Amino acid sequence: MYYRNLYIDYNSFYEGFKKPFGAIVTGQEILFRLKATGSDHIEVTLVMAQEGKSEQFLKMAPEGDGFYKVVSTGAEPGLLFYYFIISFSEKLVTHTIYVGAQAPGIGGEAVLRENRWDVVPYQITLHQFVEPAPSWYKDAVFYQIFVDRFYNGHPEGKVLNPKKNSFVYATWEDTPMYIKDCQGSITRWDFFGGNLEGVLKKLDYLQELGIGGIYLNPIFKSRSNHKYDTGDFLAIDEMFGSEEIFQELVLEAQKRGIRIVLDGVFNHVGADSRYFNSFGSYPELGAAQSPDSPYYSWFNFFQYPTDYECWWGVKDLPNVNENNPTYRNFIVGPEGVIEKWTRMGIGGWRLDVADELPDDFIADIRSSMQKANPDTVLLGEVWEDASNKIAYGQRRRYLLGKEIHGTMNYPFKNGVIDYLKGHLKARELYHRLMALKENYPREAFYSALNSLGTHDTKRIFTEISDKEHLKIAVGMLFTFPGVPCIYYGDEAGMKGEADPDNRGPYPWGKEDPEIMEMYRSMIALRKSSPVFVGGELHPFYQENTFGYLRLQGEEASLIIINREPEDVRLVLNDALGLDEVPEQFRHILTGEYHLKAKSFNVYQL
Amino acid sequence: MYYRNLYIDYNSFYEGFKKPFGAIVTGQEILFRLKATGSDHIEVTLVMAQEGKSEQFLKMAPEGDGFYKVVSTGAEPGLLFYYFIISFSEKLVTHTIYVGAQAPGIGGEAVLRENRWDVVPYQITLHQFVEPAPSWYKDAVFYQIFVDRFYNGHPEGKVLNPKKNSFVYATWEDTPMYIKDCQGSITRWDFFGGNLEGVLKKLDYLQELGIGGIYLNPIFKSRSNHKYDTGDFLAIDEMFGSEEIFQELVLEAQKRGIRIVLDGVFNHVGADSRYFNSFGSYPELGAAQSPDSPYYSWFNFFQYPTDYECWWGVKDLPNVNENNPTYRNFIVGPEGVIEKWTRMGIGGWRLDVADELPDDFIADIRSSMQKANPDTVLLGEVWEDASNKIAYGQRRRYLLGKEIHGTMNYPFKNGVIDYLKGHLKARELYHRLMALKENYPREAFYSALNSLGTHDTKRIFTEISDKEHLKIAVGMLFTFPGVPCIYYGDEAGMKGEADPDNRGPYPWGKEDPEIMEMYRSMIALRKSSPVFVGGELHPFYQENTFGYLRLQGEEASLIIINREPEDVRLVLNDALGLDEVPEQFRHILTGEYHLKAKSFNVYQL
Repeated sequence: MYYRNLYIDYNSFYEGFKKPFGAIVTGQEILFRLKATGSDHIEVTLVMAQEGKSEQFLKMAPEGDGFYKVVSTGAEPGLLFYYFIISFSEKLVTHTIYVGAQAPGIGGEAVLRENRWDVVPYQITLHQFVEPAPSWYKDAVFYQIFVDRFYNGHPEGKVLNPKKNSFVYATWEDTPMYIKDCQGSITRWDFFGGNLEGVLKKLDYLQELGIGGIYLNPIFKSRSNHKYDTGDFLAIDEMFGSEEIFQELVLEAQKRGIRIVLDGVFNHVGADSRYFNSFGSYPELGAAQSPDSPYYSWFNFFQYPTDYECWWGVKDLPNVNENNPTYRNFIVGPEGVIEKWTRMGIGGWRLDVADELPDDFIADIRSSMQKANPDTVLLGEVWEDASNKIAYGQRRRYLLGKEIHGTMNYPFKNGVIDYLKGHLKARELYHRLMALKENYPREAFYSALNSLGTHDTKRIFTEISDKEHLKIAVGMLFTFPGVPCIYYGDEAGMKGEADPDNRGPYPWGKEDPEIMEMYRSMIALRKSSPVFVGGELHPFYQENTFGYLRLQGEEASLIIINREPEDVRLVLNDALGLDEVPEQFRHILTGEYHLKAKSFNVYQL
Repeated sequence: MYYRNLYIDYNSFYEGFKKPFGAIVTGQEILFRLKATGSDHIEVTLVMAQEGKSEQFLKMAPEGDGFYKVVSTGAEPGLLFYYFIISFSEKLVTHTIYVGAQAPGIGGEAVLRENRWDVVPYQITLHQFVEPAPSWYKDAVFYQIFVDRFYNGHPEGKVLNPKKNSFVYATWEDTPMYIKDCQGSITRWDFFGGNLEGVLKKLDYLQELGIGGIYLNPIFKSRSNHKYDTGDFLAIDEMFGSEEIFQELVLEAQKRGIRIVLDGVFNHVGADSRYFNSFGSYPELGAAQSPDSPYYSWFNFFQYPTDYECWWGVKDLPNVNENNPTYRNFIVGPEGVIEKWTRMGIGGWRLDVADELPDDFIADIRSSMQKANPDTVLLGEVWEDASNKIAYGQRRRYLLGKEIHGTMNYPFKNGVIDYLKGHLKARELYHRLMALKENYPREAFYSALNSLGTHDTKRIFTEISDKEHLKIAVGMLFTFPGVPCIYYGDEAGMKGEADPDNRGPYPWGKEDPEIMEMYRSMIALRKSSPVFVGGELHPFYQENTFGYLRLQGEEASLIIINREPEDVRLVLNDALGLDEVPEQFRHILTGEYHLKAKSFNVYQL
């Protein structure tokens, strides 16, 4: 790009400008190169700051060919921000311009600003040495199960241990609904009666589908159907089964090469819990019953006992103070909650509302988990780019090395859906996905749990009801870096608007055969080559066409997506984003592709 | 009572003044006697009119002892109204006064008015010859069952054929509730899963309790739990069972001396019915689907198909036009609804909202029913004194001979409860109950279905939560003229506020033993002597003490109630209301009774 006669070029996505690409380990050197030609007396300065610290001004040295370079690094895990100042002379007048990123958190091609305050710094994620997630995790296809809605394993479909003053859906085909009063509070919980025995009985189905990991929504004793209102961290909910059944499930899953990841809800408990015990359902004295309760110090009461800190103002979910030593010890101490369940042979944990857990608590969970079993994975619920998430005024550090292995990849899902619905251009999707690749530590990017929907979103077949577009979304899920996760029933063609509609009962025997086949073939594709698990990602775009190369060793796979309702012709050499494809794969770029309308195209090259 | 020097006495409750007492058959002569003394030139005129006709003025003749008399009658079934005009001279001035009743529909001691327009006429009910209700009915103790809440007869408590998109209570101990939207419309129906097999399995219990008749709330196929929204008049609801089970129930009940009375809902149907078919649930074309429907003419559409006549504005309950010949024939014609079910051996029908059914339709139901089986009873839902009820601007004629045998006796229930709660004085209760005795044809009074609560009222133990007072209410239920009916579970001590709380599940195994014993002993009392079924009723009162004699042949039973929390002494001779006890029982009146605080006292004399 030009400013007067000055030509400037910088693009954080390419190693010709910044090497190495993306996030770095603390202390690792980074070479910055910026091209500036066409003027006299050019001076280029790299302005760099570790977040919260003062800026450093590093003068960049000319290295010929119009490039200026400097080597720098960051010392502490966190975020490093940088931009460039260029001064040059034209007709004896000195000009100063500022070179930075297009938008916060989105790197790539630089933009120029005349005013220093307008420049958006580039981000570099600085992390500690990251112990990779277990290879079984990265190799797996995951499957998320909302237990009450998956399958009732009782031979006659009897609902186990139904809870007093709750409702059971009359038939497995009913449409979910909340039973609420006019203030919007739930007056009774509704259950279909799915249980762990049901999951156990469907393990063969999951194995045959190619599943290697199950993410189970919470299963500990609690009043609701979703169980995010834990009543007892040490007990399986009696409607779901028992500790014995759970142990059997874990072991039977292991026999089939499937590991189970539990949902850990440690930010709050249920008001109806052993700990808070608002309704006296538990024999012990709870915090809501008396300040003499052993659990009293876990909670923050503003006015005892009615006014207390709770999750998003929901009185049914009193917040726990994770810094309370008794609570901390209960969860992560010896013989604590994490150890107890991890020892039973699970594959790891998914942390609910990871945003709201202190970083050192997450680190303690990781330690406790890996002490019990090193071959486990820790995932976190984060809805945005997890590398630069600010929650409660604090920059979160989950991805920096000692905490989670990966996050639930909602930005991936949103990008895919927005692109297929025509809300994003291919160019924008490219930038969103490249930003994830750049900002996340490599291990975190490859350990993200990718999905097209969860219990907290609309179902993918409702978001994208065109089956040809759906096939593109499913194809991307299984060919993109990260661990693909199927939300139960998506493979059966379930539809679902927002909660509770997205938590319908699995339509056993009434699966959509076309969609089932779509999932099966895409799972087979993923398993056909390790390139889809570990291969480097090189996205590209041209007009409305988006695609990516996955490259590993000698292997290359090319994915090209035409979302439009007309056929398209693509000459790969004309697409944008492929400047740095390694030498041995450059011959691929000469290819010309005829793409059918609304098509997902894979080429094993 | 006096007016100036004139002494006047008239009391419609006593045969010394009006003979015979109470309602009469058309054409039967009535002797009126009024006492007026203490003045000159007394002239007494009886003013009498058949409702809707002009008044007749009948001069009364002196007969000595200060009495004036006249004999009259009424020609047509209906209501006869009368009052008296008395003119007399005092100091050469002529005065005219008017003698009538205390309040509309309440006879007894007369009151004087100076203005003709202020006089309230007495009522006499004129009826046709009344064929008595079957003796099995009048001898029986009844039991009302709301099927969904009584007992689930499935061996493992499985709910039969649950309806799609409805809810089943998680446990039999749950508290009933409606699932409504914020506009108050029911969004899903709620079921406990009681069924006819359940009733069948509890027949031994009912027989052992002493039950001779069951009033079943509706059982025909319909969407709701209460089934007042009939979907198919010719089918048993599949959640309740089948026609085979129903036949078995009827026959097994008969073996135990129990007859089953069905709830007939003929004023409206469900929008979700074979006839209206708003939701296309039935294969045939319904009236809401096309004007070509064979059922189209049953309904009154204001604007097709959305605006139609319905019950109390409830769109879910479209009204049927009972004068439509097709409908009429469907219900009461040969092989019609009434015949079909009556032929299966039931004991009769209870007509829902009898107020809203044309008189000739009720008469047709009676004929159809008795054609199928003469030994049956026809009851009507009427909430007030049924002898003078005006509904939709029309005086109703249910009790006049060709229609129902008896009504649900809500006035009895209300009187008992209001008196025990201290809202009525003993004198007022006396008048309310005497008014029923006077206004109802004798057969109708003795064929009323008395209860202390139904599916449409609070439960008695909630109305009256003092067990000593409860015992009085239960005692009255079983010793008063009319057929006592227990609302299922009242004998177990169930509590219940208004609907839906009053429709709770029967607490099998958790019955209140004290209340159960209370019911058992009162049922035993009723069965100890025919005097409680057929005996004449002579109520009396003194202060807050209320009581009644039941007299038959040589038998006499005396009931005295002390509702107060202190002991009371009663000399029967001092009580009011007993002026006309027959000669052979007058010795009883000399008795003196010491009544414990809050006590129900029975003396077999």
